[in-house]
Amino acid sequence: MTAYEIIHSKRSGAALSRDEIAFMVDGYLAGEVADYQMAAFLMAVYFRGMSDRETEDLTRIMLASGIVLDLSRLEGAKVDKHSTGGVGDKLSLVVAPVAAAAGVLVPMISGRGLGHTGGTLDKLESIPGMRTDFAPDAFVRLVEEVGMAIVGQSPEMAPADRKMYALRDVTATVECAPLIVGSILSKKLAAGLDALVLDVKVGRGAFMKQVEEGRTLARLLISTASRLGLRASAVLTKMESPIGRTVGNALEVAESIDALRGSGPDDVRETSLELASRMIVLAGVEPSIEPARRRSEAALDSGDALQVFSQFVEAQGGDPRVVDDPGRLPQAAVTEDVVSDRDGWIVGIDALEIGLASTALGAGRTTVGDEIDPSVGIVISSPTGSEVASGDRLAVIHAETSGRAEQARDRVAAAFRFGGAPPASSPCVIDVLE
Amino acid sequence: MTAYEIIHSKRSGAALSRDEIAFMVDGYLAGEVADYQMAAFLMAVYFRGMSDRETEDLTRIMLASGIVLDLSRLEGAKVDKHSTGGVGDKLSLVVAPVAAAAGVLVPMISGRGLGHTGGTLDKLESIPGMRTDFAPDAFVRLVEEVGMAIVGQSPEMAPADRKMYALRDVTATVECAPLIVGSILSKKLAAGLDALVLDVKVGRGAFMKQVEEGRTLARLLISTASRLGLRASAVLTKMESPIGRTVGNALEVAESIDALRGSGPDDVRETSLELASRMIVLAGVEPSIEPARRRSEAALDSGDALQVFSQFVEAQGGDPRVVDDPGRLPQAAVTEDVVSDRDGWIVGIDALEIGLASTALGAGRTTVGDEIDPSVGIVISSPTGSEVASGDRLAVIHAETSGRAEQARDRVAAAFRFGGAPPASSPCVIDVLE
Repeated sequence: MTAYEIIHSKRSGAALSRDEIAFMVDGYLAGEVADYQMAAFLMAVYFRGMSDRETEDLTRIMLASGIVLDLSRLEGAKVDKHSTGGVGDKLSLVVAPVAAAAGVLVPMISGRGLGHTGGTLDKLESIPGMRTDFAPDAFVRLVEEVGMAIVGQSPEMAPADRKMYALRDVTATVECAPLIVGSILSKKLAAGLDALVLDVKVGRGAFMKQVEEGRTLARLLISTASRLGLRASAVLTKMESPIGRTVGNALEVAESIDALRGSGPDDVRETSLELASRMIVLAGVEPSIEPARRRSEAALDSGDALQVFSQFVEAQGGDPRVVDDPGRLPQAAVTEDVVSDRDGWIVGIDALEIGLASTALGAGRTTVGDEIDPSVGIVISSPTGSEVASGDRLAVIHAETSGRAEQARDRVAAAFRFGGAPPASSPCVIDVLE
Repeated sequence: MTAYEIIHSKRSGAALSRDEIAFMVDGYLAGEVADYQMAAFLMAVYFRGMSDRETEDLTRIMLASGIVLDLSRLEGAKVDKHSTGGVGDKLSLVVAPVAAAAGVLVPMISGRGLGHTGGTLDKLESIPGMRTDFAPDAFVRLVEEVGMAIVGQSPEMAPADRKMYALRDVTATVECAPLIVGSILSKKLAAGLDALVLDVKVGRGAFMKQVEEGRTLARLLISTASRLGLRASAVLTKMESPIGRTVGNALEVAESIDALRGSGPDDVRETSLELASRMIVLAGVEPSIEPARRRSEAALDSGDALQVFSQFVEAQGGDPRVVDDPGRLPQAAVTEDVVSDRDGWIVGIDALEIGLASTALGAGRTTVGDEIDPSVGIVISSPTGSEVASGDRLAVIHAETSGRAEQARDRVAAAFRFGGAPPASSPCVIDVLE
């Protein structure tokens, strides 16, 4: 067996044996398969795909490359939520406290932002003092104490995924369903979960542009998780306009706190409740979606979820006073308005363009080593469905300097699509797959 | 412009601009594009292909990566022959002297064997003293003096091809028409030729398994050559059984000398005359194929071609006495017969299996650094079309030790396909494209 033969087989459309997949993945992690051979292999997988059995084997092999957390001392079902990534996607900061307040244990392992989408860890770290680098033992204690924790992936968990993902990211092989499934599930299985709710985003601001692509990925995630003993359900959600009204790290934390107070935008509230309710059902806290929905609404509206969020911030070293005083979050030096040059209805806001503009302001990374600025970003003043007149404010840019704000202005303005009538309203949740 | 974006474009099926192709090829040669990015790019090209215009640009960019020989001081048309590679393919050793004896200047730049196919340089170097490493000036003088020369590619000629080919060879991206065209033509154009005859081999022993694949490649080679100012024609030839009766370096030199004496196997003679005649036409020495054919037959049958071969050997430092006394070529320590275990007609001999068996004996390389043994190989005793009885000799294995001969025996025996009746005879030349 050689790497050449395995690349050649996959290139020719063959299904690979478990041993062949292990030869590539384990060999790559050990430095015995060259990065250029893995790159050619990944591109061949992009074009030829993998069978369900191959995808399962890939996931198992990536999982077995590292440690698996032992969460057995936590009594109750451990359920995480994972999003495939969107612009303004601060939902974890709302969903996790709601689910935890409703009685679910939420040991959440999150990532950092790359490209036009943000990362939950970067958002959290905009809270003064907040840490996300806890060792496995401390992580388990946090979940035990608060009911939830959000930390980064330990380098010992699914290291094959870490190395492969870094290569996929520079070889244009990210957007490939079996590779996405292997990457997500190997990490989630390494966290020792009982169940997982997947937020599969589709639209211009997401990796998956088409609903059917997203549905196919969601089905593959659920079926592969099931073969590996992990209960999962998936919520297909719309990612055309940014989620909520803020994009940028501290800005999104402030908006999440608003949502936990019951005053955030409708789409943040609606999607968060849907995801939290699915977690409640998978955890077995409620037998079906209707009582789960009532339970998550109660957790939010009673202030219990906000209370959990405050405890969570404090437990992870952050300043819990930000909950009552968001002015303690980092503030941008400069804010500048983007105003409309015409009259009309806002019928859409291009999430990809807003995400790229926010990244260019310093809120995100274009390469792994980039520093991010927690204070900068974009606040949408006229969301989709608003009627605006020429001169009305469309958005506010939060920037480090007025020069950088200026650079972002045209791109932000161009992201707003105008129409002569209000757009048909469409639900945030497109479908739920179980 | 980034390597990522270019890989992504090609992966998505876009045609690349000349600047984008240059960014990848020149960047790779300069070490600015990583080998893993080039590997992913090559695999994307394998699946998405290239337009004729992209293939032309690729060839120009690879050509421009190095020097172009100046053959202008040679009066007359300079024509080379290139084979896509076969098992037992010693035709260059016959074709070049025939064409040179017929008045064509033949500045031939050849390669070494890799995988199951042999290389002309390796064959020539089995002649005691023979050198193939001449600098450009010396190469031109050799052609001037003898009418032909066969040397290795200078590292300064098409260096981008050299680096890309080495990568393709280990990433299963060799069998891809636009990459093959860029590789062949950039090297041939760097040699300063006026015209080129292509021997495109198809069948089990060739890279191209199907005739239509070979025809498509031949058309792309001719049309791309024409866009770049190089006259070309292509002969599609059969590569099911090995060419002639010998596979192995010194064994093939001896068989070539036989053919130049007029006593070699029919397929070697027939294909060599066809290729030499096409060179004579492209050189303008004769206006059409019929007189060119008569001229090449005369060059062979008069002994003029053998005379040129002898001069060529001497001019490149080899011992010309091998021409009259092939016993001066390296001889294997051991020869062992492979005998038939049944009665019947030989209806085919699997060239791929014979090539692999010969490589395993030490006649070829499995990796670039392997040493080869010039004396070993296989001689076919019962070629396709023979009637054999159980106990008759099928082949003779020439090996370093009887242990290695023994290892090859079953594979060689299994390469012979038997039938109950003689096979329908089929011509060596399938088609000619101009």
